[in-house]
Order: sequence, then structure tokens, then C-alpha cells
Amino acid sequence: MRCAAGGAEEGNEVNSMKKYGFGVDVGGTTCKIGLFETTGTLLEKWEIPTDTSENGKYILDNVAKALKEKMTEKQIASEEVQGIGIGIPGPVDGDGEVSVCVNLGWGHVAVAKELSGKMYGIPVKAANDANVAALGEMWQGGGKGYQDVVMVTLGTGVGGGIIVGGKIVAGAHGAGGEIGHITMNPHETEVCGCGRKGCLEQYSSATGLARLARQALAESHETTVLDDVAEITAKAVFDAYKAGDKVAAGVVDKFAAVLGRGLSIVSCVADPEIFVIGGGVSKAGQPLLDAVQKVFKAETFAACREAKFALATLGNDAGIYGCVRLILE
Amino acid sequence: MRCAAGGAEEGNEVNSMKKYGFGVDVGGTTCKIGLFETTGTLLEKWEIPTDTSENGKYILDNVAKALKEKMTEKQIASEEVQGIGIGIPGPVDGDGEVSVCVNLGWGHVAVAKELSGKMYGIPVKAANDANVAALGEMWQGGGKGYQDVVMVTLGTGVGGGIIVGGKIVAGAHGAGGEIGHITMNPHETEVCGCGRKGCLEQYSSATGLARLARQALAESHETTVLDDVAEITAKAVFDAYKAGDKVAAGVVDKFAAVLGRGLSIVSCVADPEIFVIGGGVSKAGQPLLDAVQKVFKAETFAACREAKFALATLGNDAGIYGCVRLILE
Repeated sequence: MRCAAGGAEEGNEVNSMKKYGFGVDVGGTTCKIGLFETTGTLLEKWEIPTDTSENGKYILDNVAKALKEKMTEKQIASEEVQGIGIGIPGPVDGDGEVSVCVNLGWGHVAVAKELSGKMYGIPVKAANDANVAALGEMWQGGGKGYQDVVMVTLGTGVGGGIIVGGKIVAGAHGAGGEIGHITMNPHETEVCGCGRKGCLEQYSSATGLARLARQALAESHETTVLDDVAEITAKAVFDAYKAGDKVAAGVVDKFAAVLGRGLSIVSCVADPEIFVIGGGVSKAGQPLLDAVQKVFKAETFAACREAKFALATLGNDAGIYGCVRLILE
Repeated sequence: MRCAAGGAEEGNEVNSMKKYGFGVDVGGTTCKIGLFETTGTLLEKWEIPTDTSENGKYILDNVAKALKEKMTEKQIASEEVQGIGIGIPGPVDGDGEVSVCVNLGWGHVAVAKELSGKMYGIPVKAANDANVAALGEMWQGGGKGYQDVVMVTLGTGVGGGIIVGGKIVAGAHGAGGEIGHITMNPHETEVCGCGRKGCLEQYSSATGLARLARQALAESHETTVLDDVAEITAKAVFDAYKAGDKVAAGVVDKFAAVLGRGLSIVSCVADPEIFVIGGGVSKAGQPLLDAVQKVFKAETFAACREAKFALATLGNDAGIYGCVRLILE
């Protein structure tokens, strides 16, 4: 060990060597992997299948194999890798451990520790996939430049991720940012996927939007282009909305009213600088943002009313970006 | 400057000297002040009037004077004080600055910097009063031993403070934890103090409980002990409830239903380990906790359902405790 005068210089040299990071976003079907420079540049991305056989016992081995192959191919030494971040589709505790992850067939898995052990001891951090996506959008996406971000993913369901001061709010039970299950309507009669009734995602997801549209069609006597659509999807509704269809406008208004009110509730808890909206439904773009923000501004507690709204920009790559951001903390 | 061998020892000596902290909870009428050991022991507390004349320009001078007098009396040197924490009844930014604080008559005041300047450069941190109260309850009160705490103050209104990983979620606009203004009922016709309609605090505060009771009395034909009560207060309702009065039971059920549902919403955002319930209404004690927790367990997203509930224990001292915890971060 060298000391004193040489120390600082050597430290800088060591840090500048740590120029790579890996992001691994584990899904139920595929694992997305990204090789990044720690500056935030994505150098390469690829996918491997997620092998959920035998309770997912091969998943981390397969990830380690893929990472090692890439390191060999690129001639990257383990000393050059600052860390590996991994996103898991289920709750992950602060030590990077999973108690149970139904989507992967896992019971208890010490993800961070096990993967590090398989990867020459390179530091590994693990977190929930929705939360790392939020972190990714904060770092290099729609929330770039902000530290207090709420990411809202409008897909089949409604996912969320809360970032406070640049850090994920994971929650004591791994359910931080589960905003899709905020009860918006205690009088709802249909049941949500979670077994409860009246959750935000019953209205403001792709599925929810189609459901609202089917209800409107059943109740409305107005002619609408949606009458001629083979299958009522979120896209069909937004296409009709953009074309000026009145029934579609009513549906989008209802969708935006529930979502705008839902986010006004979130702002009374977390008070973010910016909401970043992603997921399939967000492809509707600016008209969607405008409709939601209009309700939000009208219904939100005065102090939080000026929160900004932006579209997510990283798409399915948000997770791998966030995984790498995780190891830079 | 000494070096190497002697350094560590000297460092410990310096730290062990920093054994005191002051907590200052500034209210619109009085400032509560506490002298603490940094271990968490409250040595002495007292109050001084808050002089809001001339836009509150004397407030920090008066605080500094009171602190200096106490230091002289107790023969405490400034080197022995680790810091001063100050709670302000309004939004405070991350640098301890206030943009405007109506309750004190203040426009922009760099609270932390100014008070430190008046106090021999002793480090000062400032934060919102509801948030420091939450921090105090986490440190030495009902939430002791937990790091992810939501404090709910049921007083004239409903206040809140969110603690994640032991730190205050202040919010981008100083409105983190403003859970009293979550919209619970978009169909409400009466107006909340904030100018909107259907806020949690319209139902779950002392005022809200009395309002619900008056509504029940107007609608009910049942005999109730509340008929003979001169003034319908939260205390009168809970007294009648404990005595087995049916009308009061209906009112408390409604109160608990809204509050339980409100906290279930909060748990979908922040997912705390524990809710700590304080404020005047919390004097109703365990029966109140039981009623709220019953609704919470029935209505909350499965992952968060096991959150604990406890009563606040520090009362009006929570703020000064939290102020001192603030300077130990």
C-alpha cells in the first residue's frame, strides 16, 4: 500500500479505470442487458431468454454468462467495471434480496450477493424493475435534470416509481410507488387484478381506457368512428380522439380526469418536480399530457400545482439505464 | 494542524465535546425551545413569544438571544453545541430558506444561514414544522426504531410528514406529506380551507369529525347522548362512542372509513413501516387506532397491508425533538 502524496493521484487513476457499468432488466420472458459507460452512454444492448424452469434457478447463471462473454468480446477487465445493476419484476429489499418473485419462480434469492459472487466480486445492486425504470428516466430520459420525479407507466396496468432526492423510494414492503392501486372510486363494482375495487389502473391503463370506451359505446346513442372499429384498444380511442370524435373525447376526458386526480393525490404525498409519463398509452403523446395536466392543474393543492409533465423518452431501455444509475449512487 | 497518529484521538475528543443540540419550533404565537443532549435526552424546554410585528423581523434575533442566555446560564460553550435545528410553519427549501411564510409575516428569509450568523457560526438546519414533528416521533416517539414513517396529525386540520430512510420527504414545493389535502370525495359540496372540495381534512380532523356529527344529528331520528351536548366537539363524539352511543358509533365509523382509506392511498405511494397518529383527536387513543386500522387492513393493497399503527407519544414536544434529530444527519 502506498501512502500520502501518491494516494490521491492513484485514487483518480483507479476511478478513471472504472468506466463501464452493466444494466440488467430481468423480465418474465427476456432479460434486457446494456453495456454502458458510467457517463451515461449506452454502448451496446442485447437480450437473452429468461429461463424460468426449475424455479428460475438458472437465471442468474445465464446473466453472469452473458456478461462475461461480453467482457471477453470487448476485452473489458473486471477492474474496469464499476458495478452491475439488476432490475427484478417484484419487490426487492434494501440489501438487494428478494423474498418471493412469482414472475421468475423465485422464493428467497439474495440477488445482489449471488450475482456478485458469480461475477468476480464486482459490486451488484438490485431493485424493483418499475423503480429502476423511474431512475433511468430521471438520469437520461424525460426527467433528466430533476431529482424529485414520479414516473407513471401506463401499460396493461398502471405502474409507478417515486424518486426523491435522486433516490428510489422502495417502500418498507417493496410497494413504494404502487400508484396503480390507489383507490379512486370506492363505489366501483368491477374487480381489479389485485382483488380490490376502484383502483387507478382500472381506469387509466390501456385496459382501463378500452373498458371506459366499451362502457361509453354501450351507453351512447351518438354516432362514433369507434362503432366501426373491430377491437376497442387504447390506440383506437386516441386515434378517434385526435380525429375529433365526440364519444372518444368523452372517454379520454374521463380517463384524464381519473389520472389527473390520481396524480394530484400523489403530489400531496411526494410533491415531485415532474411527472414523467411512459408506457404504451403514452404513445398518444402531447394530447394525452395536455388532457391530464389540465385536470391536474385544476384539482391539485395549490403548492404542488406547478409540477411539470413530460413524456418518457427511453422506452423499454429505461430499466437498463436505471440499473446503471443505481450502481453510481 | 496535527497529523497521523494523534488525529483520530483528537477527532474523538472533538466529537465527544459536541454533546448539546438546540431544537426551536417556531409557531405563530410562541417559539418552543429545547436544550438536548445529542443522545436524545431533553434537558430543558421553555417558550418565548413569537414577535410577528414588522414582518417578523425580530423573530430570529429573539431566538438567538434566548439560546445565548441559556448557554450562559448553563455555561455551555459554542464548541459544545453540535447544531441548532429550527422548525418553521411553512415551506422550507433544502438550503434552509423560506420564500414566504404567512404565519410569521416573512417574505424571503435565509433562516439557517441567518440564525447561524447570529449564533457564533454554530451549524443550523431549518425545515417545515410538520416534517420535523414527524422526524421527532421517528427518533424518540411513537415511531422509534423505524426508518420509514408517516406521521399523521389530526388537529384542526390534518397534517402529515413523510420520513423515508430516516429522512424527511420535503417535496419539490415544500408540500411533501400534505396528506390532509388528498381529495377523498370529488362530489363534496362544502369548501375546504384550501379552497378545494373533498379534502381528507374535511372529514378526518377535529373540525371534520364535528361536522360529520352535526350532519348525523340532522339526519338521524335515533336518541343519542349527543343531543344533550352543548357543543359538538371531537372529544364529545369520542366520549359518546366509548359509552356505546349508536349515533356516535356511526360518526366514528365514517371518520375512520375516510381516514383508513386515505392512509391506504398514502401507503400506495410511500409504503411506510408504520403510521404514527398524533394531534388532538389522537387523544381518543386505542379505540381510534383500532377503527382506522380495521378499515386500512380491509382496503389496502396487499403488499402494504401489514403496516403498523401507533400513537404519537411526544405531543407538542415532537417538533423540538425533530429539530435536534435534523442536525444529527
